[in-house]
Amino acid sequence: MKKILVLNGPNLNLLGKREPTIYGNNTLDYLIEDLKKTAASYGAVTEAFQSNHEGDLIDQIHHAEEENYTGIILNPGAFTHYSYAIRDAIASVNVPVVEVHISNVHARESFRRESVTAPVTVGQIVGFGFFGYELALKALLEYIKRGE
Amino acid sequence: MKKILVLNGPNLNLLGKREPTIYGNNTLDYLIEDLKKTAASYGAVTEAFQSNHEGDLIDQIHHAEEENYTGIILNPGAFTHYSYAIRDAIASVNVPVVEVHISNVHARESFRRESVTAPVTVGQIVGFGFFGYELALKALLEYIKRGE
Amino acid sequence: MKKILVLNGPNLNLLGKREPTIYGNNTLDYLIEDLKKTAASYGAVTEAFQSNHEGDLIDQIHHAEEENYTGIILNPGAFTHYSYAIRDAIASVNVPVVEVHISNVHARESFRRESVTAPVTVGQIVGFGFFGYELALKALLEYIKRGE
Amino acid sequence: MKKILVLNGPNLNLLGKREPTIYGNNTLDYLIEDLKKTAASYGAVTEAFQSNHEGDLIDQIHHAEEENYTGIILNPGAFTHYSYAIRDAIASVNVPVVEVHISNVHARESFRRESVTAPVTVGQIVGFGFFGYELALKALLEYIKRGE
Amino acid sequence: MKKILVLNGPNLNLLGKREPTIYGNNTLDYLIEDLKKTAASYGAVTEAFQSNHEGDLIDQIHHAEEENYTGIILNPGAFTHYSYAIRDAIASVNVPVVEVHISNVHARESFRRESVTAPVTVGQIVGFGFFGYELALKALLEYIKRGE
Amino acid sequence: MKKILVLNGPNLNLLGKREPTIYGNNTLDYLIEDLKKTAASYGAVTEAFQSNHEGDLIDQIHHAEEENYTGIILNPGAFTHYSYAIRDAIASVNVPVVEVHISNVHARESFRRESVTAPVTVGQIVGFGFFGYELALKALLEYIKRGE
Amino acid sequence: MKKILVLNGPNLNLLGKREPTIYGNNTLDYLIEDLKKTAASYGAVTEAFQSNHEGDLIDQIHHAEEENYTGIILNPGAFTHYSYAIRDAIASVNVPVVEVHISNVHARESFRRESVTAPVTVGQIVGFGFFGYELALKALLEYIKRGE
Amino acid sequence: MKKILVLNGPNLNLLGKREPTIYGNNTLDYLIEDLKKTAASYGAVTEAFQSNHEGDLIDQIHHAEEENYTGIILNPGAFTHYSYAIRDAIASVNVPVVEVHISNVHARESFRRESVTAPVTVGQIVGFGFFGYELALKALLEYIKRGE
Amino acid sequence: MKKILVLNGPNLNLLGKREPTIYGNNTLDYLIEDLKKTAASYGAVTEAFQSNHEGDLIDQIHHAEEENYTGIILNPGAFTHYSYAIRDAIASVNVPVVEVHISNVHARESFRRESVTAPVTVGQIVGFGFFGYELALKALLEYIKRGE
Amino acid sequence: MKKILVLNGPNLNLLGKREPTIYGNNTLDYLIEDLKKTAASYGAVTEAFQSNHEGDLIDQIHHAEEENYTGIILNPGAFTHYSYAIRDAIASVNVPVVEVHISNVHARESFRRESVTAPVTVGQIVGFGFFGYELALKALLEYIKRGE
Amino acid sequence: MKKILVLNGPNLNLLGKREPTIYGNNTLDYLIEDLKKTAASYGAVTEAFQSNHEGDLIDQIHHAEEENYTGIILNPGAFTHYSYAIRDAIASVNVPVVEVHISNVHARESFRRESVTAPVTVGQIVGFGFFGYELALKALLEYIKRGE
Amino acid sequence: MKKILVLNGPNLNLLGKREPTIYGNNTLDYLIEDLKKTAASYGAVTEAFQSNHEGDLIDQIHHAEEENYTGIILNPGAFTHYSYAIRDAIASVNVPVVEVHISNVHARESFRRESVTAPVTVGQIVGFGFFGYELALKALLEYIKRGE
Repeated sequence: MKKILVLNGPNLNLLGKREPTIYGNNTLDYLIEDLKKTAASYGAVTEAFQSNHEGDLIDQIHHAEEENYTGIILNPGAFTHYSYAIRDAIASVNVPVVEVHISNVHARESFRRESVTAPVTVGQIVGFGFFGYELALKALLEYIKRGE
Repeated sequence: MKKILVLNGPNLNLLGKREPTIYGNNTLDYLIEDLKKTAASYGAVTEAFQSNHEGDLIDQIHHAEEENYTGIILNPGAFTHYSYAIRDAIASVNVPVVEVHISNVHARESFRRESVTAPVTVGQIVGFGFFGYELALKALLEYIKRGE
Repeated sequence: MKKILVLNGPNLNLLGKREPTIYGNNTLDYLIEDLKKTAASYGAVTEAFQSNHEGDLIDQIHHAEEENYTGIILNPGAFTHYSYAIRDAIASVNVPVVEVHISNVHARESFRRESVTAPVTVGQIVGFGFFGYELALKALLEYIKRGE
Repeated sequence: MKKILVLNGPNLNLLGKREPTIYGNNTLDYLIEDLKKTAASYGAVTEAFQSNHEGDLIDQIHHAEEENYTGIILNPGAFTHYSYAIRDAIASVNVPVVEVHISNVHARESFRRESVTAPVTVGQIVGFGFFGYELALKALLEYIKRGE
Repeated sequence: MKKILVLNGPNLNLLGKREPTIYGNNTLDYLIEDLKKTAASYGAVTEAFQSNHEGDLIDQIHHAEEENYTGIILNPGAFTHYSYAIRDAIASVNVPVVEVHISNVHARESFRRESVTAPVTVGQIVGFGFFGYELALKALLEYIKRGE
Repeated sequence: MKKILVLNGPNLNLLGKREPTIYGNNTLDYLIEDLKKTAASYGAVTEAFQSNHEGDLIDQIHHAEEENYTGIILNPGAFTHYSYAIRDAIASVNVPVVEVHISNVHARESFRRESVTAPVTVGQIVGFGFFGYELALKALLEYIKRGE
Repeated sequence: MKKILVLNGPNLNLLGKREPTIYGNNTLDYLIEDLKKTAASYGAVTEAFQSNHEGDLIDQIHHAEEENYTGIILNPGAFTHYSYAIRDAIASVNVPVVEVHISNVHARESFRRESVTAPVTVGQIVGFGFFGYELALKALLEYIKRGE
Repeated sequence: MKKILVLNGPNLNLLGKREPTIYGNNTLDYLIEDLKKTAASYGAVTEAFQSNHEGDLIDQIHHAEEENYTGIILNPGAFTHYSYAIRDAIASVNVPVVEVHISNVHARESFRRESVTAPVTVGQIVGFGFFGYELALKALLEYIKRGE
Repeated sequence: MKKILVLNGPNLNLLGKREPTIYGNNTLDYLIEDLKKTAASYGAVTEAFQSNHEGDLIDQIHHAEEENYTGIILNPGAFTHYSYAIRDAIASVNVPVVEVHISNVHARESFRRESVTAPVTVGQIVGFGFFGYELALKALLEYIKRGE
Repeated sequence: MKKILVLNGPNLNLLGKREPTIYGNNTLDYLIEDLKKTAASYGAVTEAFQSNHEGDLIDQIHHAEEENYTGIILNPGAFTHYSYAIRDAIASVNVPVVEVHISNVHARESFRRESVTAPVTVGQIVGFGFFGYELALKALLEYIKRGE
Repeated sequence: MKKILVLNGPNLNLLGKREPTIYGNNTLDYLIEDLKKTAASYGAVTEAFQSNHEGDLIDQIHHAEEENYTGIILNPGAFTHYSYAIRDAIASVNVPVVEVHISNVHARESFRRESVTAPVTVGQIVGFGFFGYELALKALLEYIKRGE
Repeated sequence: MKKILVLNGPNLNLLGKREPTIYGNNTLDYLIEDLKKTAASYGAVTEAFQSNHEGDLIDQIHHAEEENYTGIILNPGAFTHYSYAIRDAIASVNVPVVEVHISNVHARESFRRESVTAPVTVGQIVGFGFFGYELALKALLEYIKRGE
């Protein structure tokens, strides 16, 4: 059974409340539930975790390797732009990571255009709202299938 | 019927031949054919066009609007990094564009990290090989569905 | 009753001990107590929280909204210069934030001149020692009064 | 008889359709027709050419010299910001060039503030809508008169 | 009756004397006189003012609003490159401003390529000698006509 | 008796007229009158001076020392961003200066984020409208009291 | 008895597992045990602490002062490159800190060449694998001996 | 038989006419004819192609591989400084490329000092007029000989 | 008779009072008087002028030409670092200018290392206190003698 | 027998005399003698060489390889910051090099933070006075032992 | 008889030993001997000199002029990237210089892409191994022939 | 007796030959002889030394201290722009240094505007030809007189 860890970084717990014109109206719980169903339809399980703490996200990435997760869907939130520690965590484990951003970060403030984590992930999906997590799931499963 | 234009920029005609460790072993024709089938299964039609000429790509983007295409999947190739003319073309039409890159451009030379077109597209899908075009197709159809 | 959250970031627990020529001789507890009295005289209540953990500060900012705080006085300490995650937290809530710095950051190392949080706050008060918190309190109450 | 070449670069064929709040509501054909009449009233002839292809614009600049045009009114569109090839074409011919921009490029994205062609033109007229072409025509005729 | 204020910044009082290969041989007085006539032929009045003092130019811009001038032709001279104070003056009034430069600033020292005032003006006319003031006058009158 | 000089730089004479969404609706005179009353209630006298001339502001700063002013509240307007001459004036006198900005300069154009005067002032108060002058007054009086 | 705190930052818990060609094959526990023995032979005690949480490391640095540690050996991991909060923690305490990096950071990605903590430490030891901790221990003891 | 493709980029069709103090007095045709003779004397054939169109040059580079050319002599003209598309074309084929510039680009405008194509060519020959093409021919033949 | 204009910019009226460890203990009047005597001993006359107003300094530079001054000794004070208007004034007149700085500007804040006026002066004398004016006088007289 | 070359660059001959608060009070000879004894206790021999000439240092690095030195302890002095020639010398030989700096270069002028040689050395020891040479010796011997 | 000076800079004495995959397997002596023969076949004499000392190379460049050398083939090695002193030496003499680099410096570390000497040489030949010296010889002789 | 060391760096041995429009027509020997006489008239002795070798200049600066020279007049030539080793030499000795440049370095290539040595000298004299050495001598003697 394929296990996928869905990691969400800082402020994503506010989804549905925070700047809805940018981030949409559904809560994180609702969206995670939805994603779980899609995953099930692909024969996969998703485990979700959100934290505003950089260290927690690193711990989870390490944990994903120890627990033999098949892959990670990661939205590092604002940590995307400066957390070399999360970057190193990704580079340190043998679990493929797909980076997702809800909004089109290239159309916002210039600091959002730099991702320090992107170079060590498999790929990025940017700008499609929470639907991007579904695409990431699909991308990850395809990536794993090819590697088998 | 949803019509999707699949635009490929410079050197993508060499897919399957060019740097296969980066770009894979299948030819563009083969891949385009494959994508057409996937599109059909979603009730959509794809039209593909490749050119090494910046102006041709701009003409096609204009053409997409005149011909009422539902959306554009665009891999601008190296034009990504400097063609403000293609950027303006995208901004000038009312057809949503999804940007695709076959390789993880963030893990290569630094000039590949800057996309001048990204700010005027709906979103980007980066690093998943040609499978990224399928994801882009899915993303575009979802995007259109929501807008309806 | 107006409730004001007073948030202090990393190393501010050392106030009175740390580099006293820059930060003064009084402890944080003493100063917070003092501020509480001033607040009371304005008919407001202050709640204080200090942490060296970026995630804790973000959690508190979220908490301020959930608990209907009237405003936040925030000294992000060194996070001022790189925590886009705290910036996003501020932008995500509907609670006005005033940024305070004890020392004149513009007269110190150059990295201290850049505040990534300032653009999403109401304003900044810089360089007046702990007295800046009193000014921030006054500024916040005035800001709220005008908005009523 | 003074012959003036009016060269328009990428996406200017969409005038009247593209972002009308920025570029106005009249089509290129209409505006070119208008300009022709103004030119006639000055005893000059205008020849107009638009292309989305950088190479076509270069060919036309060369052509202007071979055909002894008196001057060129050039709106390089987005090529303004990176086409050193067009710059070299201008520097290679003995035909004076006036650069025109419809919108005030200095009030838009920062990349629009850099013109790589400006240093080799006679002058620039920026921000007056299509009326700028009339001013350019006047400027060019005056420039030629002085040189005679 | 349309009243146009013609503002000239530092060192432009030396026109005809200063670096004639760059700035031409006619004095400012002569040229201003000439412009007045052209204006009259368009049914407009020009008022001219020159100063080497940044503050005087700001005062005049304020004055133009108080006295209901129809528009301003402004050559800020070297202030173009650093006077954010003049920029703010322009942004503070409801009088449209056209920026003029006598020489092609893009073909000279690199510091001359940056205009801090351009973003808040209607447009710029650069490189046509003093004739640029006539073009500016024409541009301003057209601009006003359209706005009526 | 404590004498405080209130110095306002370029374009601040337009308060109440200039961009009211940014700068508010009250005139400078009205606000200065108000501040005078607040000062009186603290047992202090304020003297106000506004100029669009950098040199005048420098002269006034020198004058403050000669006349034994207790402190200066300074809003240098756009000079904030480039007037090293005002910076030197502040550094040359023994009168403490508090810098005030009406709007949150960090939330506007990027050039407004750099203050060349800030390093030689006591502190800055930014973003609280004209109320910032009251806070500055309070800050200055507290600063002086501690120094006594 | 000299007490030395050995602080390891993010991802160093993976030593022996993570990128062994860069970081070696021994686990952190094994290496810490080894270091403890070397310290004992010098008549010193080492206490070790690892965390992926920036805040924990700051807390520990504060703790080192409260508990009168003689010195700190610090490998901030990726925090080296952006944690001004850890830098401030070091500057806030009276405990000397030696910075260690296992790999030669100057021979890797360019972002690894900048250490924001280095200016406030006693010195740095870079590139000698875990043996660098032994050198740091020696350096710290020598440093303390000289200061006695 | 060794076949060498001689590719000339934008404005090189004007050789002999364009800025002769920089580029010399002979026409491209004359020079190409000359080079053909030199090549013949080495037992090689040269095929020449010039275009002002970036896409044509890319097409030709692809064509060189399909037609088993032994090598390419490329003067990309101004495309040297920004055409990542030509760079990618060179990297995509298995035909060695030697880059030639007629003038000493390092002694001209600073933008001419950056070659985006150079990193993927075998080498560069710069500053020797059209004679540089002969040197390039020699260099290419030597390079091929060594590789055989 | 040789007439030399001695121009002093902002804050130099405070000489003897302002930061005496940097600028010395003598007043400007005293020093000017001294310089006059030295000049007399060389058969020259000095005229001194100080202003905190950029425009006044420009006016004086123009005046120097009208009145046939032999040369100008100029200490632009802080205007050195940004007054392109003074730079243009110097370039506009046919009077040689020697730039003087009292302190060694290269050993102070980094912004003091850039002089925008230096490129259009004859030379600079930096760091020798007010004695630098005597050296400038000598330099100017020698310069004039050679030109005769 | 292990032979270690101890190379000291420019101005290190002044140790004990030059800026003693930064570099200490002992002469180079004394320190070298000391190091020789420590080396002997490890069963190694040190050979010392100092020069203010970049070329001499390069010659010595070449010499170290020819004479089969086991390793080099190198303090390049100010050459650290710009001598790409020394960097190339290190990269050209098969002798491991450890870089030492007496002072904490990161706490001084910013130019001292860049080491062009560091990327091609084994590691760096920075900030421990001359004791750093002993650490470097130890590091080098350990490095060699592991490689055996 | 034409005399050509062949100057090789730092570390080129190690040719054949140093990084052979980059620099080839032949020693400098062998290659110089070879070049001498080629020169003889062109009726020219080469004199070779190698040094790791910047000053020696400058002395030799001066010497070349005194001894009426016809030209210089110069490989400045790493001095290429920072020796403004060698640049000035080249600019100071009337002997034409051709710059050679053995490897394709554009395909290596970024610092190797900047040549401070190139602007004052006749041209550069880069990337063809030692064969580049033969091309340089040919280029130089052709250059001289044209100048005769 | 005051002893002044006159140090000239690379290429200054070519004075009178090298680029005479920039550096004048007199040889170094002639000029040094002249300076000696001027020095004698001030009761001082000058010793002159020129070298193209950075190391020699450093040795001489050290030597100046050992031999109790009263001061150094230093023209570092092109070393001005990058020799941190010479900078350190100056900072290491207790002999005051005056920096001289013959030409106005600020009016030439931009790299000549940066002096890495200036911050550790007493002052600079720039642009007055060889006469600058006389001014430097005067400046140095005055500087010493004041320090006595």
